[in-house]
Amino acid sequence: MSNPFMQAAIEEARRGLAEGGIPIGSVIEYRGEIIGRGHNQRVQKGSAILHGEMDALENAGRRTADVYRESTLYTTLSPCAMCSGTILLYGIPRVVIGENQTFMGEEELLRSRGVRIEVLQDPECLELMRRFIAEHPSLWNEDIGV
Amino acid sequence: MSNPFMQAAIEEARRGLAEGGIPIGSVIEYRGEIIGRGHNQRVQKGSAILHGEMDALENAGRRTADVYRESTLYTTLSPCAMCSGTILLYGIPRVVIGENQTFMGEEELLRSRGVRIEVLQDPECLELMRRFIAEHPSLWNEDIGV
Repeated sequence: MSNPFMQAAIEEARRGLAEGGIPIGSVIEYRGEIIGRGHNQRVQKGSAILHGEMDALENAGRRTADVYRESTLYTTLSPCAMCSGTILLYGIPRVVIGENQTFMGEEELLRSRGVRIEVLQDPECLELMRRFIAEHPSLWNEDIGV
Repeated sequence: MSNPFMQAAIEEARRGLAEGGIPIGSVIEYRGEIIGRGHNQRVQKGSAILHGEMDALENAGRRTADVYRESTLYTTLSPCAMCSGTILLYGIPRVVIGENQTFMGEEELLRSRGVRIEVLQDPECLELMRRFIAEHPSLWNEDIGV
């Protein structure tokens, strides 16, 4: 994996795993720099809303629309309805996704609203989620409302 | 206003306003009881993701899918794309909305996915938002990504 932003998102996912959490990470890139990074905090903070993407957006702090509209969201896993809705709220125009084989999010909805989507099917992202889902199926289901 | 859950959501909105925040409140009702309540925390916590609905869901804590699927979300304002996506993620089947005249959220998307929507056009909710938007237009725009 040579893309440094996806690499940073994977680092976030691994950090979450090391904390005993769900291994999904995300970063927000704006004009070539990371302005927010984070990972799923369901276990660590008992959070129902801090998916990796949401944690990265929260850590980016309050921003005006012009920043979001020039940003790219990198996430290790296809974004769920919550995270996709947030991408739409803020008008983030581009999303780079590590993989969508273990979970298919709302990519179709995003595309229908004009968001550019790239899916890498990155082997590291896939392996992180495959192993996690096999080992913690009920925790994973809780995270995706199943 | 006789509905006690919407009344609680309005109380949350007024609490947010008293704190110097954006006056939008929300509660989650499950089997006749409030399991989570909250209000917009953009100003108070410097948050990009704690809309009223998100704050209420976060305050409800980690829940399994069966709880969400029997819950109703009450919110003083039509839910934006982020909050609507979260409603879809967790399969919340019913949303009661204080008003959708100052802001129209993703009600059509929610309906297309089978969520039951009721809009009260409550005068208190309307007055809270009309006044707030007139007095703080840039803060309001930031909150909705405009």
